[in-house]
Parts: sequence; structure tokens; C-alpha cells
Amino acid sequence: MEKEIISWIYEAAEKIKTGLGSALKVDEKSDRTDLVTNVDKEVQNFLVEKINTYDPDAKILGEENGLDQTPIDEGRVFVIDPIDGTMNFVMQQENFCIMVAVYEDGIGQLGFIYDVMRDELFWGGARVGKVFYNRKEISVPKNKQLKQGLIGMNAALYRHNFHHAQDIGNKSMGIRILGCAGLEFIAMIKGTQIGYISMLSPWDYAAGKIMMDQLGMPSYGADQQSLTFRKRELFIGGTEAAVREIQAFNQENQ
Amino acid sequence: MEKEIISWIYEAAEKIKTGLGSALKVDEKSDRTDLVTNVDKEVQNFLVEKINTYDPDAKILGEENGLDQTPIDEGRVFVIDPIDGTMNFVMQQENFCIMVAVYEDGIGQLGFIYDVMRDELFWGGARVGKVFYNRKEISVPKNKQLKQGLIGMNAALYRHNFHHAQDIGNKSMGIRILGCAGLEFIAMIKGTQIGYISMLSPWDYAAGKIMMDQLGMPSYGADQQSLTFRKRELFIGGTEAAVREIQAFNQENQ
Repeated sequence: MEKEIISWIYEAAEKIKTGLGSALKVDEKSDRTDLVTNVDKEVQNFLVEKINTYDPDAKILGEENGLDQTPIDEGRVFVIDPIDGTMNFVMQQENFCIMVAVYEDGIGQLGFIYDVMRDELFWGGARVGKVFYNRKEISVPKNKQLKQGLIGMNAALYRHNFHHAQDIGNKSMGIRILGCAGLEFIAMIKGTQIGYISMLSPWDYAAGKIMMDQLGMPSYGADQQSLTFRKRELFIGGTEAAVREIQAFNQENQ
Repeated sequence: MEKEIISWIYEAAEKIKTGLGSALKVDEKSDRTDLVTNVDKEVQNFLVEKINTYDPDAKILGEENGLDQTPIDEGRVFVIDPIDGTMNFVMQQENFCIMVAVYEDGIGQLGFIYDVMRDELFWGGARVGKVFYNRKEISVPKNKQLKQGLIGMNAALYRHNFHHAQDIGNKSMGIRILGCAGLEFIAMIKGTQIGYISMLSPWDYAAGKIMMDQLGMPSYGADQQSLTFRKRELFIGGTEAAVREIQAFNQENQ
């Protein structure tokens, strides 16, 4: 299955790069900074078609085209984000990812995050028992504490100090705001950031969570509960040491 | 002169990449998140030696080894930052730059910013009348308003809403925090971000400012005054439209 998915992702990336060369049609969704383009929609349709041909019984959970209410826990579910970081895609023409995840009865099997413009594919999970950076197996990142590393954040969480994001940032070596969940997951998987706190939808975390699980890196939703895969929700993930510190701090300061 | 400087930068980059492969010696400076490594110092010494051999009369302004008080306005001054983004260098082994600038009697002549791990060199200024990305001339970025683009920030400015950083961010399409001034200047020069607000030392902005000047992009210090090149100070720069909006907003809301 992984060979097929990787080939779809590379084909989708070519469509995105072609799309960058022509006039983008950009629409606003919930507000003026929540963007979607014709390329997001076309690439989602492309991935849906590939999945439907490969496995007509599989269900699909995704951001665009009304696929956002698919339950995660019934049968095989592909979770797709054709362009994660659409704002970066539109404004920077870089720093965005394609993300695909496969769940079986709610259990993560394979996750794929592709940084299109840097040509960096991170993929793996329980089905293959490993995580890869392109063709190279990734080793488990060091279990660093908050004070030993950089942590990724969402700007609104940080600005408003929601869930003590500022206090947690102050305990770390510093925060980074990249505007793309996929890049934050890549940084955690590579070990270049120790954690990530954000508000995420299922297609934002589905692929990254599978690879983090494989590497023994915990991730949670609100109130230290499991992520629900049902809505946009709090996401806290990272090294085990950093996540324990974040949880303890949030419990002490409720 | 530009050929020599580019060759020093590429040679310095090789030293940095070699340094990444061996054990880094990391020291704290003003606080636990203000880092310097043996590689910063070695690369600064390397650049100083090259400059002294090339032009024994030139002065040097730089962060390490007591070169931080050199005045900018007397004769030829090389402003150097051997590793801009030392925290990223230590934590991520990427997302850091080498920066070199040449001033003559306080007037910017040439600026160089090299993103080492991506092998992307941005350089140019009044002396050559152009700005280049590697060997390709860069065209002037679109004069976008705040609401049309992304803006880079320093985390502390943003967290505390100093100089209305949060309000300005809210008027933009979003903020990014990269932890490396050189990458923020590259983003402005490429046109992928419309502005940058931070607290910067002369070696953080010297090279970027020269290229921005060449592209007609304004930059200021505190109170809409010129940058002083004497201390760590407020930096506001970007497209002309965005900088005018930021200045007007700060004046209205003093």
C-alpha cells in the first residue's frame, strides 16, 4: 500500500508545482485568513480518485469537498490534506506539505508528510514498524525536556496565552511559528523541535501522530484526553519529557 | 570585491558544516537562550583573517570577540555575522545564515546573506546596482499592503505586544517566527513576506538593509528614525506600503 500512496503523493506534488506556475484562484473560507485555492480542491479530487480506485470500500476524511465528517473508527479510512499550509502556499510558494494517513478501525497504520518544495518525504508507522526520511530510517529523537529545545506554536494560542502557551514557551529554548502543521511534525520527527501546541483538525495531525506513535512520542487533545478526530481541537505533542512537563504545568495552573 | 567575499562565505559554510559533524561547544552569553558556539567564534576569526588580508585598512563590526563597538561611518567597514540564528544552528542544524555587509563612510555598498543548509545566497547592493539570488537577478517585490502578506516577528515583541506587534500582526495575513533574522530578510527580498519587526543588532540587519535599500524597501529604527548601527534596537522594515501602515499605526497609538 505504501508504494501506491508514495506514488500518488509525488504525482500530486507535480500538480501543485504546475499550479504554482499558473494563476491561482484563491477563496476565503471562515475568515479572510482562512484560504483555499483551486489547487487544494484539484489535488484533493486527485487523491480521492486514486484512493477510490485502489480501495473502493475505504472511507476518506479530508478538509475540502464535504469529506470533513467521516468517522475515523469504522473500517479503513484515508485521512488527506492536499495542501497543509495553504497560506504559505499562496504567499510563499513554499513551506507547505501534502499529508496522507491510513487508519484501520481507528488505529493508525501509515502516515506520510511531504514537504513539496524541499522534496522531503517523511513516512512510516505501525504497518511498516519504522519511520523514514525519504529512503533513510529515522532513529528515535532524544527525549529532551522543555528547557532543552524549541517548541512550535500556533500564533493565536501564543498571543492569548491560551493553555499557558507563553509560559510553556518561556520554559523552552524558544518558540517557532511556521504556519504549517506538517513542518512542525517534521521538526519533531527529525528531533529539531521538542514539541508542538496548536489548534488542529484531524487532517492536520492524522499523519504526524502515526509517525510520532511509532517513535514513542506522545500526543494528546484537550484535558490530557485522546485526540477525537471529530473537530478542530487542542493538540499537544512532542518528546515524552516535554509533553509530561506541559501537562503537569497545565494541571497545576488550571 | 564581491567575488572574494562570496568565496569566503562558501569556505566559511564548509567550516560550519564540518563543525556540525563534530561535538559543538555551546556557551551561554547574556542568558540561557543566548548561545554562542566554538563554530561561531572560529568562523568569525576566519572571516576577520580574510578581511584583514584583503584590506588591512578596513574596520570590522561583528558580534563576537570584542568587535561589537566599531563605528559604521568611518572608512570601509565590514559587518559580519558568522552564524545568524545560533539557536537554530544548535537545535536544528539548519535555518541559520552567514551574513556579511560592506559599508563605506556609513553608506551600504554590498550585502550578503547565505542560507547555508539550503545553499541559497542572496547578495547585492549599490555597488553592483542589483540584488541576486545565487546567479539570478531578483526583481523588486510587489509593494503589498499589510493585509496582503505575512510578517516576521520576534517572539518577545509579539508576546508583549511591544510596538503594537500583535495589532500589526492582526492586520496582516499572519505572523511567522523563524528565529533567524537572515531568513526574515531573505523572505522580504524574495517577496514571500511583506515585513519584519524585531529587536536587532547591527550585524543582524546590516546586510539585509543594503539589499532592501537596493530594492526600494524601507527600514527604520525606533521613532521612525534611521537605524543607528550602535546597539540592539527596534527594526521595522518591509514593503513601502506595509512600513507606512506600521508607522502610521504606531503614531496613532503611542
